[in-house]
Amino acid sequence: MARIVMKFGGTSVADIGRIENAANRVKREVEAGNEVAVIVSAMAGVTNQLVGYVEETSKLYDAREYDAIVASGEQVTAGLMAIRLQSMGVDARSWLGWQIPVKTNEMHGKARIEDIDTAEIVRRFENKEVAVVAGFQGVSPRGRIATLGRGGSDTSAVALAAALNADRCDIYTDVDGVYTTDPRIVPKARKIDRISHEEMLEMASLGAKVLQTRCVEIAMNHGVRLQVLSSFEDKPGTLVVDEEEIVEQQVVSGIAYSRDEAKITLVKVADIPGVAANIFGPLSEASINVDMIVQSVAADGARTDMTFTVARSDLDRAVELLSANHPGIGYESLLSDGDIVKISVIGVGMRSHAGVAQTMFRTLAEKGINIQVISTSEIKISTLVGEEYAELAIRALHTAYGLDAA
Amino acid sequence: MARIVMKFGGTSVADIGRIENAANRVKREVEAGNEVAVIVSAMAGVTNQLVGYVEETSKLYDAREYDAIVASGEQVTAGLMAIRLQSMGVDARSWLGWQIPVKTNEMHGKARIEDIDTAEIVRRFENKEVAVVAGFQGVSPRGRIATLGRGGSDTSAVALAAALNADRCDIYTDVDGVYTTDPRIVPKARKIDRISHEEMLEMASLGAKVLQTRCVEIAMNHGVRLQVLSSFEDKPGTLVVDEEEIVEQQVVSGIAYSRDEAKITLVKVADIPGVAANIFGPLSEASINVDMIVQSVAADGARTDMTFTVARSDLDRAVELLSANHPGIGYESLLSDGDIVKISVIGVGMRSHAGVAQTMFRTLAEKGINIQVISTSEIKISTLVGEEYAELAIRALHTAYGLDAA
Repeated sequence: MARIVMKFGGTSVADIGRIENAANRVKREVEAGNEVAVIVSAMAGVTNQLVGYVEETSKLYDAREYDAIVASGEQVTAGLMAIRLQSMGVDARSWLGWQIPVKTNEMHGKARIEDIDTAEIVRRFENKEVAVVAGFQGVSPRGRIATLGRGGSDTSAVALAAALNADRCDIYTDVDGVYTTDPRIVPKARKIDRISHEEMLEMASLGAKVLQTRCVEIAMNHGVRLQVLSSFEDKPGTLVVDEEEIVEQQVVSGIAYSRDEAKITLVKVADIPGVAANIFGPLSEASINVDMIVQSVAADGARTDMTFTVARSDLDRAVELLSANHPGIGYESLLSDGDIVKISVIGVGMRSHAGVAQTMFRTLAEKGINIQVISTSEIKISTLVGEEYAELAIRALHTAYGLDAA
Repeated sequence: MARIVMKFGGTSVADIGRIENAANRVKREVEAGNEVAVIVSAMAGVTNQLVGYVEETSKLYDAREYDAIVASGEQVTAGLMAIRLQSMGVDARSWLGWQIPVKTNEMHGKARIEDIDTAEIVRRFENKEVAVVAGFQGVSPRGRIATLGRGGSDTSAVALAAALNADRCDIYTDVDGVYTTDPRIVPKARKIDRISHEEMLEMASLGAKVLQTRCVEIAMNHGVRLQVLSSFEDKPGTLVVDEEEIVEQQVVSGIAYSRDEAKITLVKVADIPGVAANIFGPLSEASINVDMIVQSVAADGARTDMTFTVARSDLDRAVELLSANHPGIGYESLLSDGDIVKISVIGVGMRSHAGVAQTMFRTLAEKGINIQVISTSEIKISTLVGEEYAELAIRALHTAYGLDAA
């Protein structure tokens, strides 16, 4: 007997037929003797429709009311899933955020879960009752519905799995797992059988869209074993587990990329204390996240070039802010480039294997691809290259690291 | 300054434009210095869609899950209305049944309101905050969402008005008031300016669809002044008030009718104690409501004919049950007729005016319409006639009682 959290995303519960399909999977786990909690998203399209209503009503809106409105989508799916399970002879009950309760902070629209009271759900496990929990929602200290932000149902699932001390959290979706890279770019991309939390976290933050960063973060911090798998096919997916659970470690597990990048270079910035604060202070105040930062000291040692990246959608605002702060920063000129892509190779094996970076640089050089910026961490190397080289670079690296399927 | 509850039905909040229109009416009341609570229905069509999902999921379903699903419609409208009011500079906050709370009993799908805690709403009235309350829903003793049955938002509104001790409860709808009879049948039907709770209750139970019986019942019991008016036109509607508030009392206020009637006659039933129980017991156990009952004693005094009406949709089941119980009841034959209509004249003035019944009988006789069954109460006379005579009878009575518009 195991305790399992099963999460079904919007496409997996898009209509009554698919809810039935998902319910069949739940039934199978129950019949195998497991204790099961199910987390459901809104039916595909519903959340967008509700957000559309809100935006049509008023351009500026109260996040508390937004939350009350959009949380209704998961409420409907949870009820339907409970009814469907009941009609199949599986005892089930729906739970909304305020009923459990899933306690969050007051950050409406992107609330964080602070506590989940699982006592009643666990009590009912004893009677073989399945808990069908509306994802994406909790209740604030003031008794208001609070949502966790888009994709928040994954977070709900992992947080519930952690609170329940579940043996596994299965994330059912419309892909059959996590791939070594985007199969639309590399047809030879392979499904990964097992990947560590840390690698998955890098994959998610660096552009792999199958799991939200926050959800992987919580899984890592609480040691939740995640599985990403298809709700439409009957085969194992990708297990996201603690590093120790992975016997045969790959040096490089996957290659992620992100086109949502833009590069800014401030040429000949005065190399004096406090200049970095002058540059990044105003950006931070404007909620513009800065990612890679490279500082190259000029030959004379007195002036330096500062290069960094921001999200492409923030580029215009960032340039505007930096221009407005020109006097305080004191740079010679400002260059910006939105036609770039960040490509990252990820693998915990890097820690013990030398030469991973060298393989990347050599491979890109052989294809005549110029690396504009490099940044590394313990388990990943990211490079910035011209966007036109994206596919070429990703395919070449995929082959170079031996990731191509046979 | 007055305290007002404003209720907007599904067609009055059918889309964002109509929600804006309704919000404008709320704003006007707030600017007039009033304390305002708003009750909203689901956007027109939404509840039917949700019920459709439920029925597609399973023919038999758990009423608790049904309630969680269908209550989401009002939740969306409440949030949208709050956002719209806020964007117009009116302080507003949405409230769901469990947040207030509106406490109900456990009769899911047709729950009864047992208590409404208005403390917080009243406290916020002091800050000119409008309470936007999701209609149709409350919370059961076990913390489950409970709905009040179709049309329950009217009930929510009146119950809230009673709990708030409101000066008035305005029911905004797609008609501009209560008419002396159905204007589709009698073009000369007049809008009633004022009608007593008791008369309105009879009108509602006897077929006028503009207000639900239960809502009028609560208004009567708690002395809530109701107004039925159009959300699309700017003119006074119909006031439903205590009888004492109506200075010039009409003898007959209105004519109601119902086609949802069927007549059953048991010929030559033994006139012995307990026979009525033998007839109506099985019907009651099968949840078949019996309305008019007439017993006519035969010449020999030993046997009697028993005629009564049931809802047309229950006719087949009723006949089946009575046939099955033939031995226990012991009638000679069973006649049934689904082609009948019940026509009722209603007016508190009947109490003090003789001849109201006589006018009805004479009018119908003059048109050659045979009265099949008569039943009377203090303020209404109902007759059963052949359905083909419905329009003729209603028009003739409308004229005979002086109700035609000039």
